[in-house]
Amino acid sequence: MASTDKLDKLRKLSLEARNYAYCPYSKFRVGCAILLKNGNFVTGANIENSSYPAGICAERTALVKVVTEEIPQAGVRGDKGGDFVRAIGVASDLTSFCSPCGICRQFIREFCDPSTPIYMFNKDGEYKMMTLDELLPMSFGPDSLHD
Amino acid sequence: MASTDKLDKLRKLSLEARNYAYCPYSKFRVGCAILLKNGNFVTGANIENSSYPAGICAERTALVKVVTEEIPQAGVRGDKGGDFVRAIGVASDLTSFCSPCGICRQFIREFCDPSTPIYMFNKDGEYKMMTLDELLPMSFGPDSLHD
Amino acid sequence: MASTDKLDKLRKLSLEARNYAYCPYSKFRVGCAILLKNGNFVTGANIENSSYPAGICAERTALVKVVTEEIPQAGVRGDKGGDFVRAIGVASDLTSFCSPCGICRQFIREFCDPSTPIYMFNKDGEYKMMTLDELLPMSFGPDSLHD
Amino acid sequence: MASTDKLDKLRKLSLEARNYAYCPYSKFRVGCAILLKNGNFVTGANIENSSYPAGICAERTALVKVVTEEIPQAGVRGDKGGDFVRAIGVASDLTSFCSPCGICRQFIREFCDPSTPIYMFNKDGEYKMMTLDELLPMSFGPDSLHD
Repeated sequence: MASTDKLDKLRKLSLEARNYAYCPYSKFRVGCAILLKNGNFVTGANIENSSYPAGICAERTALVKVVTEEIPQAGVRGDKGGDFVRAIGVASDLTSFCSPCGICRQFIREFCDPSTPIYMFNKDGEYKMMTLDELLPMSFGPDSLHD
Repeated sequence: MASTDKLDKLRKLSLEARNYAYCPYSKFRVGCAILLKNGNFVTGANIENSSYPAGICAERTALVKVVTEEIPQAGVRGDKGGDFVRAIGVASDLTSFCSPCGICRQFIREFCDPSTPIYMFNKDGEYKMMTLDELLPMSFGPDSLHD
Repeated sequence: MASTDKLDKLRKLSLEARNYAYCPYSKFRVGCAILLKNGNFVTGANIENSSYPAGICAERTALVKVVTEEIPQAGVRGDKGGDFVRAIGVASDLTSFCSPCGICRQFIREFCDPSTPIYMFNKDGEYKMMTLDELLPMSFGPDSLHD
Repeated sequence: MASTDKLDKLRKLSLEARNYAYCPYSKFRVGCAILLKNGNFVTGANIENSSYPAGICAERTALVKVVTEEIPQAGVRGDKGGDFVRAIGVASDLTSFCSPCGICRQFIREFCDPSTPIYMFNKDGEYKMMTLDELLPMSFGPDSLHD
């Protein structure tokens, strides 16, 4: 992670993004902010569905924006153009720290360096930080599909 | 659907959006464009994952942007502020018309009126149009969770 | 669908299967029974997850058992050995008829003939029947991935 | 994990279960075996879909059988009746060890004790073992939805 300024903004945006949640079923609002290496911030929130498994979490809502809008595209080739995410923030309405679910860790894994810091904020903006590799060790990734 | 101009733009954006696909596993590029009632267009593309079930299709990639950015927010209450999508376009690289998968029909169902037209384009921009209700009749939606 | 006897059993098993639901989040129990062409019945129920999108619906819980246990296997080749499902039943605790969500229609699509009847039961065992093709017209299936 | 006998059987069943995979898209067969505390074994394999995100991995295919068939049911209450899984095995066709994807770790998390050993086998039956807590630290689970 970079400067205190950047972390402050990641915190602020993660908390604010909760306002965009669509969560009538769980009432559990989650906000996510992603800081890119180019300095841009991208945000997302959880979007639920009446068929619960069709919902999409905040982290993935934010990351799909990054992948389809913010990075050099390589389409079908799968060359993502290097790692472009500097840090990820997640926030809920609880006093405990909100960690990404396993689906989101897997989704992040495809596009981010194992060393990417993930800041898990509580409702007061306090946080616990762990890297992607710490949250998803021995991960299943693009290299796992062949020897 | 509104004017020929709008349909032309929906077609153009749906086809262009394929360039943003991340599909190293299927090599099957899909682009999506959504025309909102406020006149804005929002686009998305499919994003795959080495764990195939963790991927997100083009229609959902586009719609999460709409839900978290373009519409009056109601957060936890689930009041989506009325129907705000005028038309949806989907395009692939085939000569046949690209229809949304069942997951995407379900995701769209949560936020769009049953009469919403979905334009399924082929690679040449020709299309077949069906409404959401025609594509997902007898749907499971927010009203299905209680009598 | 075959005889009244078979339909009666499909109804009974669909309703009973609700007892195996794990749905602490929605409290919405769903049961599913599948009648195979060999005369066997296989059942399933919805299984939720604290990360809502990680849940698996009743129809898919039942069908994964069929695919991995009941049919001639063709593994990697994808030859499913012909259509082996005669009918599918779904039931919830409501007085209205419980229809499969879009995810489940997509999952069923991979393995069942378009003419497969899907019986949507209410809590009293009354039903509405629609075929897979009626529930998922213009479907995206194995043939949709290439011209 | 218990005896050498049990581990040998877990390995054998995990490898054998690959034969039941339906994976025409990835050609990547995965088998899973679960040893229950009552001594029973349950197996599963990956089931893919032409809409890739609709697929279900081997670990989840096996675990839905356990949840809907093998354990004391508590249905809507969400009381799973204590921890009932003793060990989980996963195997692919590679010489490297096959680890569960993030979705599966999340799905397992709902039903298994953090100390549950997960044996990741290679095609030759060699393995690396890690506990669920090691594979999904700081997990999002049933207790994460409220303070």
